[in-house]
Formats: sequence, structure tokens, C-alpha cells
Amino acid sequence: MRIALLGGTGDIGEGLTLRLARGTDHELVVGSRSVEKAEDAVEAYAQRLGEAATAELSSASNPTAAADADVVIACVPPYHLSDTVEAVADELGDAVLVSPAVGISRDEDGFHYNRPPHGSVAEVAADAAPEGTPVVGAFQNLAAGALSDLDHELGFDVVVTGDDGAAKATVMELIGELDGLRALDGGPLANSAEVEAITPLLINLAAENDGLADLGVSFH
Amino acid sequence: MRIALLGGTGDIGEGLTLRLARGTDHELVVGSRSVEKAEDAVEAYAQRLGEAATAELSSASNPTAAADADVVIACVPPYHLSDTVEAVADELGDAVLVSPAVGISRDEDGFHYNRPPHGSVAEVAADAAPEGTPVVGAFQNLAAGALSDLDHELGFDVVVTGDDGAAKATVMELIGELDGLRALDGGPLANSAEVEAITPLLINLAAENDGLADLGVSFH
Repeated sequence: MRIALLGGTGDIGEGLTLRLARGTDHELVVGSRSVEKAEDAVEAYAQRLGEAATAELSSASNPTAAADADVVIACVPPYHLSDTVEAVADELGDAVLVSPAVGISRDEDGFHYNRPPHGSVAEVAADAAPEGTPVVGAFQNLAAGALSDLDHELGFDVVVTGDDGAAKATVMELIGELDGLRALDGGPLANSAEVEAITPLLINLAAENDGLADLGVSFH
Repeated sequence: MRIALLGGTGDIGEGLTLRLARGTDHELVVGSRSVEKAEDAVEAYAQRLGEAATAELSSASNPTAAADADVVIACVPPYHLSDTVEAVADELGDAVLVSPAVGISRDEDGFHYNRPPHGSVAEVAADAAPEGTPVVGAFQNLAAGALSDLDHELGFDVVVTGDDGAAKATVMELIGELDGLRALDGGPLANSAEVEAITPLLINLAAENDGLADLGVSFH
């Protein structure tokens, strides 16, 4: 399977690329608006992984990364999400577009979920995506720091939302290939807001409790 | 410590009373709008607990239950919360008022967090409480079914929010007395919405995934 990580040079892109590159045998393409940045990132990731790499890594512009991809993960902040999806729209076809972003605001009390008017960030991605491209929400509650530290044992749940059953199954299977992650079906894309809202809570819990950092969530 | 459970005859009231009655040595008063209902509930709880009971259980009207209580837990649905708090306002004094309620709506996609205009259900409780009564959000993510089944091993986290450090510490200590629950500081009361929003997600996850029921959450 070919997996494009749009904005794969950022924190969450780095974390997801490293985890996917150590544990799966997919073809990973790190995309960026700048091809040079993508090249530099892939070089750094390959160095980090060394002989632990199990997947093939390459770099490209975001649209080239998305071309012919089976899964496209939009690893960009929510305020860049619509632009990023629109910039690759011609390449998406029936690839599964995955939205891991969360809108977060901060005030004197802590971090808060900044819910978009369209219901959730995943639904913003769906609005920006061309018709026929299924959109799935996933990975929102994973801390980039935990993902990028390959010695960090995860043990987290990943809630997956989406309206296209086959697309959701593809993403859930992919998650199942990663050590320490369990995919849970969260139902339709309209259920994404409650998943996204957990991320600012994780940051608040890390800030307010000694000894907690790079938190994830599990359900049982 | 004297703990009043307002509306302690309902599902979450039953669960919290049973867990507090098996494991702590506090004085528990089950309140209801109907004294008879409270009496019947206490009789049923005592029978359920049998010799496992470690706390003293009694019944009363909600205002009588709240009188002289150190901790008052408002175990009522969100649409009864303001009325319930106002009905006991004269008795609250500097007791810690605990809000476990969550506003939940349902549509064809699933269950959703029905966020009150005042920010969160816990903040609705604070608006209804008299000045000087500290309000704490806690217990929102505990399934009544898991609490009430005393054989169910919990292993859950309870996020506690509040603006009064001493009140929050009292509730966190109380949670620490219960087997299988860990209290985590969620920061100020204004951080409650993200905690409350987890509850509809737990219901969606139980509905969408085989073998999952009465879910709770943990952070690590």
C-alpha cells in the first residue's frame, strides 16, 4: 500500500512516519510544500530508523506524494487543512484521506477544544475533499512526542471515525499493524468532535499532574 | 466525612453509593426528592452490600441530606441540575459540591456531547450554587453499570476539575480511597467540557465495537 504523509515534516508527521516505517512494509511518501524540506526529513528519519526500518521511505511535494496513494494522511495543523487538501484534490481520487488534526485554543485556564463551525476538524477535511474521496478521522489523540520516541511503548487506543466502511476498515487494519496501538470504531465522521476534544484534555492532564507527559488514552 | 448523594436513587447515584459504601468509612446519605424513594434505595443498597458494607448508609430528602455534609454529589441528569442545586442551596454552606452529570444528545450518527451555553455542566452547577460553595467536576466518565456491578474491576481514571484547590484535593483523596480509580487533576472548572465530552464517546465505542460495554477511560 502507498501511504502519503502530507506535511510529513511536522511533529505528528514525523511521529507517524517513524512508527509506520518501523513495523509495516508499506511505501511511505513524506510530502511537504517544499520538496527540499521533505528530502531533509526523510534523510533524518532514515538515520533515526537505521536498520529498524521495514518500509520504503521517499519524499515529494504534497501533490506528488498524494498521486497514486491508497491512504493520504493530512499531518498539518487545522488552519492549513483545507488549503492542503485543496492543493492535492486533483490527485486524491478514491484514496482514503485521514485527518489527525485537532483545533486547540489556550487561555489562562488551560487548553480547550476549538470546535470548528463545521462540527469537527475531520468534517472540515471532508468539506475540502473532492466528492468520492472517503475521509476518516484517526490518530488525533496520539502525542507526537510519544510516537517519535521509538523506545516509548504506546499502549493507546486510536478511535477511527468515517462514513465509508471500507475506508475505515483500511485505516483500522493499518493501525492494527502498529505495535501498541488498538483501533476502535468510533462510528460515523459526525462523531469525530468528541474524539478530537480529548487532545486538549491530554495536554491539561500532563500540565496539572506530576510525572505525566506525552499522554495517550485507552478505553476498557 | 459526611457525603450526600442528591438523587442518589438514580443509576449513577446507585453506582457511586455502592462503591463508596464498600471501601470507605464515611457517613453516606442518599437523598431524593421523595424520602420514601430514598429509604427504599438505601434498603436495596444495604441488601446488595451485605457484609461488604464499610460505610454507614442513611436516607433523607435532598435538603436534609445536604445539611452538614462535607461533600454533596449531585447525581441528577443535567436538566435537573440547576433545580436540584437551588433546592439545597440554603444547606450547602462551604460543602464541596460535586458535578458528575453530562449533557448528551443522540441523533442518527450516535451520541454527542450537548455542551451547555455556560461552557459545561459543571459550570452550570457552579452558576446555580451559592457564593462560597466550591464546585468540583468529577465522575463524569464512569459507567453506572460498571460501578453498580461490584464484581467489575474498574481500573479507570477520574479527572477532577475545580477552581478551589482544597475542594479539589478533598474529592481527589476520596477517589483515591476507592479500589480501581485514580484521580487526575484536570485543572480549573473551565476545563470540564473536554472531560464531559468523553462520555458520549464511551457510549459510541461500546455501540460500535463488539465486546466492549460499560467502558471507562484511562490516561498514560
